[in-house]
Amino acid sequence: MKDMIDLETLEVGYDVPALPGMDEAEIQTPCLVLDLDALERNVKKMGDYAKAHGMRHRVHGKMHKSVDVAKMQVELGGACGVCCQKVSEAEVFARGGITDVLVSNQVREPAKIDRLARMPKLGARTICCVDDVANVADLSAAAEKHGTQIECLVEIDCGAGRCGVTDTPSVVEIARAIDQAPGLKFAGLQAYQGAMQHMDSYADRKAKIEIAVAQVSQAVEALKAVGLECDIVGGGGTGSYYFESNSGVYNELQCGSYAFMDADYGRILDENGNRIDQGEWENALFILTSVMSHAKADKAIVDAGLKAQSVDSGLPFIFGRTDVEYVKCSDEHGVVADPDGVLKVNDKLKLVPGHCDPTCNVHDWYVGVRNGKVETLWPVSARGKAY
Amino acid sequence: MKDMIDLETLEVGYDVPALPGMDEAEIQTPCLVLDLDALERNVKKMGDYAKAHGMRHRVHGKMHKSVDVAKMQVELGGACGVCCQKVSEAEVFARGGITDVLVSNQVREPAKIDRLARMPKLGARTICCVDDVANVADLSAAAEKHGTQIECLVEIDCGAGRCGVTDTPSVVEIARAIDQAPGLKFAGLQAYQGAMQHMDSYADRKAKIEIAVAQVSQAVEALKAVGLECDIVGGGGTGSYYFESNSGVYNELQCGSYAFMDADYGRILDENGNRIDQGEWENALFILTSVMSHAKADKAIVDAGLKAQSVDSGLPFIFGRTDVEYVKCSDEHGVVADPDGVLKVNDKLKLVPGHCDPTCNVHDWYVGVRNGKVETLWPVSARGKAY
Repeated sequence: MKDMIDLETLEVGYDVPALPGMDEAEIQTPCLVLDLDALERNVKKMGDYAKAHGMRHRVHGKMHKSVDVAKMQVELGGACGVCCQKVSEAEVFARGGITDVLVSNQVREPAKIDRLARMPKLGARTICCVDDVANVADLSAAAEKHGTQIECLVEIDCGAGRCGVTDTPSVVEIARAIDQAPGLKFAGLQAYQGAMQHMDSYADRKAKIEIAVAQVSQAVEALKAVGLECDIVGGGGTGSYYFESNSGVYNELQCGSYAFMDADYGRILDENGNRIDQGEWENALFILTSVMSHAKADKAIVDAGLKAQSVDSGLPFIFGRTDVEYVKCSDEHGVVADPDGVLKVNDKLKLVPGHCDPTCNVHDWYVGVRNGKVETLWPVSARGKAY
Repeated sequence: MKDMIDLETLEVGYDVPALPGMDEAEIQTPCLVLDLDALERNVKKMGDYAKAHGMRHRVHGKMHKSVDVAKMQVELGGACGVCCQKVSEAEVFARGGITDVLVSNQVREPAKIDRLARMPKLGARTICCVDDVANVADLSAAAEKHGTQIECLVEIDCGAGRCGVTDTPSVVEIARAIDQAPGLKFAGLQAYQGAMQHMDSYADRKAKIEIAVAQVSQAVEALKAVGLECDIVGGGGTGSYYFESNSGVYNELQCGSYAFMDADYGRILDENGNRIDQGEWENALFILTSVMSHAKADKAIVDAGLKAQSVDSGLPFIFGRTDVEYVKCSDEHGVVADPDGVLKVNDKLKLVPGHCDPTCNVHDWYVGVRNGKVETLWPVSARGKAY
């Protein structure tokens, strides 16, 4: 498939929602809009934070699935590269010029292992996670076959309840197997505490991360005792990066949502009890939607429904408005309560999606806007790359 | 954008999940799989039903967004064409050779109206809905500009609570305006009772549709009184088509989900209290997923999460299995309870998604299988066509 996109061949309202140079008012809805100023401020702020705290920042590309956003995070935010969750997704970033790519997930299926082993040939440092010693021989054989090197992190389940081992002896066993396997290099630990990222209370999140830090520290020490050093001790998300940064054991952050923000993350509270979308981070991602019907006086129907977003973490909120509320979502329609009848047909609203990751994955394009103009059109490069 | 796809250029595991001729076991997960035998039986059964009841069947293309499935529904199921919800989606069907296309929705934005007015030039009868007399002049001007004809249905809100007018005088007012507008043709009524489709009880659904039928009958009579005949009186979904078919007033069905089925529709009950996926319709759509981690004895982690499905209507169920259960869904992971530890890494499971429409819209491809072989690969042609 061609990697270059010729914007001239794209039809607005069919292939793409807008083209660079257009007025914001001409954008076809529903679509994803990025406030480029806000995005750049978020990216710079997290980059500065990581640098000031001596942390490597490997941004989570699975959130935006965009080579262009990843490049901005490298250039403006000082990120070392990306992590992502799928081999096909990793290939998109590697092909797009990101030179340090971690598949922060298990790779078990033979064809996927084979593709992973070929990835270094695209010019990218290639890293994956392992939580089963039985995986090591397969990864090793594939790397040997292709004459490449795959770096491996042992994945610790420190509370997310998904992949990962939970006890230190298993960590050491897998790490040693990796270290001894030709074609592989033991690179450290993956320990992302995913389950607590969305807990509202700062104190609750802190309590959870303290458990994780103790677990990870124990593993790091046990590995040292057998002569294995961790180049990477990775984890940390938008709801916790300050904890990992000050843990003394993590050295790599892997934040994603901070760049765009969403309604679910926005609700969590910082140390002072303030929502994190009210100062810590800015909303940079919006679903632009239009009113398409107002046949009932107190209710407007907008054109962004389930096919323009994921509602797994709740409904979107309407940015900058308290007079109207998005109250119901069906396949292609959203119902907006408009008690005072202030909306008119073709009025546009900016929705902050409940959950940015799966919402971005529904769309093919980001429309980047600044000062009321469409400045750029970025493909959601790894959209649909679920393999 | 090119409309023809050269399968030879597509990489399995990157661009596509499989290629025709492969064994089912080689399919890269997660992806959508269609059981072609089951699909064909569903399509034929509904087609036969509609024919036997003297109903036109306009299949809902918004469910599958596939030109290939729509063509099967026309050829094997006797469908007259499709309905869909967006102008860009309608264009995909018209370009793909479907000759009778209804946008069963409001079209208000100037650029979208302009595109709609050009659609007849693609060779398709072009129909849309209207719920506001103010829309008529815009549609008329665009049709006149392009020298085409747009047929218009007045949309009645008979319980869905979205677009549509609720009183007969408004229906008549809009219908007369359409009838008098150059470039437009009054074609009838759109009256889909969407809200009751998913009520479990047959009697509850029947009660709701009786209200709708009374409302629609009154509108048809009032239109007759002013000399306007309805070519189309459309509505009816997978949870109600038998009611509309026997109503004496509807003449067109617009079913979608019957072809694929999903967990949410599967739960609703027929007249005898049986689930409709246990006899009335067959599950033809599955999300194929693989076990990627089993680091905890009683829990398998599979590779289909929120980016492989929509969970707005609940989690998927695992087809044909009672020993394991899909219990949790995050972005790229599903947690499967495996109390007896029967699953192994790389085992495959077939998930029946909670809600087929937004799940199909996440994927780029349907893998059509028969007798253990990949027989066909169909693009989700209108995926992302949300404008």
